[in-house]
Amino acid sequence: MTLAAVDLPRAYRLLNHGPVTLVSSAHAGRRNLMAAAWTMPLDFDPPKVAVVVDRSTFTRELIAASGSFVLNVPCRAQAATVLAVGSCSGRDPECRGDKFAHFGLATRPAAQVEAPLLAGCVGWLECRVLPEAHNELRYDLFLAEVVAAWADPAVFADGRWHFERAPDDRRTLHYVAGGAFYTTGEGLEIGGAE
Amino acid sequence: MTLAAVDLPRAYRLLNHGPVTLVSSAHAGRRNLMAAAWTMPLDFDPPKVAVVVDRSTFTRELIAASGSFVLNVPCRAQAATVLAVGSCSGRDPECRGDKFAHFGLATRPAAQVEAPLLAGCVGWLECRVLPEAHNELRYDLFLAEVVAAWADPAVFADGRWHFERAPDDRRTLHYVAGGAFYTTGEGLEIGGAE
Repeated sequence: MTLAAVDLPRAYRLLNHGPVTLVSSAHAGRRNLMAAAWTMPLDFDPPKVAVVVDRSTFTRELIAASGSFVLNVPCRAQAATVLAVGSCSGRDPECRGDKFAHFGLATRPAAQVEAPLLAGCVGWLECRVLPEAHNELRYDLFLAEVVAAWADPAVFADGRWHFERAPDDRRTLHYVAGGAFYTTGEGLEIGGAE
Repeated sequence: MTLAAVDLPRAYRLLNHGPVTLVSSAHAGRRNLMAAAWTMPLDFDPPKVAVVVDRSTFTRELIAASGSFVLNVPCRAQAATVLAVGSCSGRDPECRGDKFAHFGLATRPAAQVEAPLLAGCVGWLECRVLPEAHNELRYDLFLAEVVAAWADPAVFADGRWHFERAPDDRRTLHYVAGGAFYTTGEGLEIGGAE
């Protein structure tokens, strides 16, 4: 698992193109992983993000207890994992209370938060929840500051994605519904921008 | 300009894969268009969305005055337009106070809101702002309910995108930074989902 630090003011670029994410969370020896397509950057510097975490989820309980989480950015090679962890609750006996163990998913510790980084991803944002209880209670909406960010340097370097340099199974994923994904496609550079 | 109504509980699927959007707004005879990559679904039914609109923008003024906006989902054929309208303020004399006129962009009226629908796009979400002043003031974050939704039936039908049926220039776009986009790529169907 190779990762390189991403400068915090450029961390938004890990999410700017709208990839699906996996939210990892942990508290007091328990941990979980859920799929989240409803996430976006909220600010550049310090970087902030917004993510929807349903009140029924085990992840919600762990985020509330720890005040933090990690947004993992998975790649095409992990599409079946994204769907699997998104289809099974961490409270479900089938997942034995630990989806990482149930699905055989490797991790490494994060630098700033309790939640682990999922191995095999291409980007990671370590996040601390901003206290905005009204949004959480009314909309299941969490706002958070990104306190550390990492990427696989084979596909993200110098603040940019470089999917064309790596095998297609390292491209990021965009989720639609019901098991349907798109991969991140062809790059376009439009002239005239600064 | 061909469009078909999208059932409101499926309107989130126009945004779920994370495409860049163009926000149109209008009030009292003035109108504007800006690029927004920081947008996401917030709820299914009634559908809600979240979008970041900077306080410095003319769009912000029009949204505040009208309480509504449209999220237009542009396609690859419009990438230069996305960049152009994102690089020029509606307050700038260069854009003559009307980016639609300045860039020669055709529109048609929306059904429920003052803001127009941008011709040539592949999806449209007509949105009414939910009154959440704290989020607007502190984070430039707007939450809104989707009150009508439309799509080009050549690429979105039966609640799903079907980019493979149409020319590649009708694929949606994902924005990175500085003129760099990705198109929505290859579709993947992972088995085992309901």
